[in-house]
Amino acid sequence: MTTTDEDERTRNASTKTNPDIYDEDGVVRSDFLTEVNDAIERGDTPFLQQNVVRLHESELGDLLESLPADQRLALVQLLGDDFDMTALTQVDDAIRMEIVDQLPNDQIAAGIGELDSDDAVYILEDLDQEDRDEILSQLPFTERVRLRRALDYPESSAGRRMQTEFVAVPPFWTVGQTIDYMREEEGLPEAFTQIFVIDPTFKLLGSVDLDRILRAKRQTKVESIMRETSHPIPAVMDQEEAAQVFEQYDLLSAAVVDENDRLVGVLTIDDVVDVIHEEADEDIKRLGGVGDEELSDNITSTVRSRFVWLAVNLITAILASSIIDVFDGAIEKMVALAVLMPIVASMGGNAGTQTMTVTVRALATGDLDIYNAFRVIRREAGVGFLNGILFAIIMGAIATFWFHDFQLGIVIGAAMIINLVAAALGGILLPLVLHRFGADPAIASSAFVTTVTDCTGYFSFLGLATWWFSIHLGR
Amino acid sequence: MTTTDEDERTRNASTKTNPDIYDEDGVVRSDFLTEVNDAIERGDTPFLQQNVVRLHESELGDLLESLPADQRLALVQLLGDDFDMTALTQVDDAIRMEIVDQLPNDQIAAGIGELDSDDAVYILEDLDQEDRDEILSQLPFTERVRLRRALDYPESSAGRRMQTEFVAVPPFWTVGQTIDYMREEEGLPEAFTQIFVIDPTFKLLGSVDLDRILRAKRQTKVESIMRETSHPIPAVMDQEEAAQVFEQYDLLSAAVVDENDRLVGVLTIDDVVDVIHEEADEDIKRLGGVGDEELSDNITSTVRSRFVWLAVNLITAILASSIIDVFDGAIEKMVALAVLMPIVASMGGNAGTQTMTVTVRALATGDLDIYNAFRVIRREAGVGFLNGILFAIIMGAIATFWFHDFQLGIVIGAAMIINLVAAALGGILLPLVLHRFGADPAIASSAFVTTVTDCTGYFSFLGLATWWFSIHLGR
Repeated sequence: MTTTDEDERTRNASTKTNPDIYDEDGVVRSDFLTEVNDAIERGDTPFLQQNVVRLHESELGDLLESLPADQRLALVQLLGDDFDMTALTQVDDAIRMEIVDQLPNDQIAAGIGELDSDDAVYILEDLDQEDRDEILSQLPFTERVRLRRALDYPESSAGRRMQTEFVAVPPFWTVGQTIDYMREEEGLPEAFTQIFVIDPTFKLLGSVDLDRILRAKRQTKVESIMRETSHPIPAVMDQEEAAQVFEQYDLLSAAVVDENDRLVGVLTIDDVVDVIHEEADEDIKRLGGVGDEELSDNITSTVRSRFVWLAVNLITAILASSIIDVFDGAIEKMVALAVLMPIVASMGGNAGTQTMTVTVRALATGDLDIYNAFRVIRREAGVGFLNGILFAIIMGAIATFWFHDFQLGIVIGAAMIINLVAAALGGILLPLVLHRFGADPAIASSAFVTTVTDCTGYFSFLGLATWWFSIHLGR
Repeated sequence: MTTTDEDERTRNASTKTNPDIYDEDGVVRSDFLTEVNDAIERGDTPFLQQNVVRLHESELGDLLESLPADQRLALVQLLGDDFDMTALTQVDDAIRMEIVDQLPNDQIAAGIGELDSDDAVYILEDLDQEDRDEILSQLPFTERVRLRRALDYPESSAGRRMQTEFVAVPPFWTVGQTIDYMREEEGLPEAFTQIFVIDPTFKLLGSVDLDRILRAKRQTKVESIMRETSHPIPAVMDQEEAAQVFEQYDLLSAAVVDENDRLVGVLTIDDVVDVIHEEADEDIKRLGGVGDEELSDNITSTVRSRFVWLAVNLITAILASSIIDVFDGAIEKMVALAVLMPIVASMGGNAGTQTMTVTVRALATGDLDIYNAFRVIRREAGVGFLNGILFAIIMGAIATFWFHDFQLGIVIGAAMIINLVAAALGGILLPLVLHRFGADPAIASSAFVTTVTDCTGYFSFLGLATWWFSIHLGR
């Protein structure tokens, strides 16, 4: 152990992330970036080979993202065959597309040949048919067949995300035979945590985790230690559903099977972690009214994607304003109504968003179902009513003092209660209804909920005021 | 292989989730629930032992959540020692607390003794000191010491989430010795994917994945196949940071080390998946203005947690309204201003939320840093300006026709441009500033951003209108 000191350093070094590259905030260090920049500009391949090639794929991905756009391709080309294409799976879609589009197809083919099949598919699936075919045609036969099969499965399916390399043995083999096979065989996957047991037609019989193999005696038959219920994933299953199976049963990897229960690949937890991230990302962005936007998108595509949402909002805002328009006479007589009405609408909007957020999230995680829906609806209505009363008192008092008008305080208080109850009901019922009809509640709920609260807010406040003051005061 | 038919059934059965329990929507089947209900009511322990004990921990957790509150404890007590306490780690916090609070401490101690240390800690950490000590005192010495050590680490740290059971061998052992040790040793963890290499003082030297052991010859020395840079996680590291290390380096498990680099436990990917979920959940809920609320919380605690956020919103809404109040003279003369002003504010609020969502998300995932901040700020301002122009034209035309007033169309158009640019800048700068000062941008951004857009919207529209009409028309 003469290398202990150096090990020590390397090990501590990587405790958080590699300090050769990252500063304390986890951002690529600017001096490192400048060095790479300069090296790219003077075409210093040896420097890059020494300092960039050794990076982990995710570190290389971060480096690519930090470089100016025109230097990314230059770096990839300077590195040539030494560039690890896995890094392309670690960058923004837009940056990947930009690099891949400009690389010659034969360089992509050479790079992709080195990758695990799931990473190769990840890069290939975004290319247009023509480029994809050209690249595939330059790959060895088995590789090509495997990738084509994965690409034939629908987008976002388990078949697209799976790795087609796996270890499979017959059930009658012993643990000893299996270990000897693994010691001899050259073409094993780069890393694996379980092996699969199949019959001669590749039908999946079960799986054995590696630790079970290591604990068993050499003469033990594989079939006697295999787990039969290994939660195989149909290749056509949506990746999101597959992720839920992984989560529910704490899987590290799972067999992917075709429609005849034949083993075609293996889905691993690292891909599932990516899926979980993507799904959470999607939910957050949809709630915020931005579609599948990425940070690297350009101005035009961003304007276009946000325009739709803002246009929907414009329609709902005009709808709410047309309610105000109905009461223009009341406002003319009493401008305080115009001053106070946005408060009622805004409180409703926020309360509705709160309820909606909880509901959308609970629907996404499967926590909300028929057994607790009624209880949750009752609770939300109760919360809306109680908070309505609290804010009715607070805002009633404020309005009374502000405009020296006790009756105005009563009117705004009553409107507040009505709107917070409406917000609670809208916030839970709209996502539930959208979900029931198969729509994604995250995408449309916030527009609908604020429409409900804006309209209810203006109508209840202005309507109550008109009625109260005309009846009670004859103003 | 005489059991093939049955295997077949079991395997297909569990493809999505177990259809003995779940219906097609993934909800616990109502007939199964009724059976369990009835069995609990007539105290039919044999039925429960036959139908409930065999469930996977997560299925049992779902069953517990679906049962009426008063039957949950009854089920746990009827099952007695056969109840798998791991299921308690799979239910809502509130439901876990409710069950654990009512169970006698010695029953908890008996159940916890069976668990992996990370699950035991998960249940113990929410108990009050007194109960916790009493339960710990009933556990065997080594078990107790291990759990206490994990509990001594700060909340949400890697030390709390780690499993204290692991396999560690000295560097000079051969692969053969290691395999023989695993075949003989009884006290191995339930499942593991790598073993660790340590010196006599438990200092971590490296790790070996099981597949590398299986591929190596028996006489190979462990130190020659171990990976030295195994990204050890300091026990005090926050779980969120630890999750980032896992994600960056696609780890399945990682050594957890104390301040002296001694191996104290292992963190596994399934815990990390939970952390990723928690963090995404937290972000979504904070953006929606609900704290760490859960679906099972009762009315009072929900009212309390949401009240704070609504109170903050009330203050900002009043601030915006006081701007309207400044222009009450203009509104009195021209009620159309009161009708149209919420549209300007609402469009700004939505555009600001869009930008904020992208920004908060990009900060959370580390995609936004000093290298692209200026580019992103420029892009957002550009997007705000372009969408501002588009909606200025649309809304200007609508206002012109609505109120037969071309000049009103010009004023609302100009205000729209101003507010959408303000929304873009507020949406990106506020989260960046909050992040810079160490605050969580998700928690406060949405209140601040809508304050900016409401105030800018009202001020720009009403201010421009006052100026324009008094100057140009002398109205």
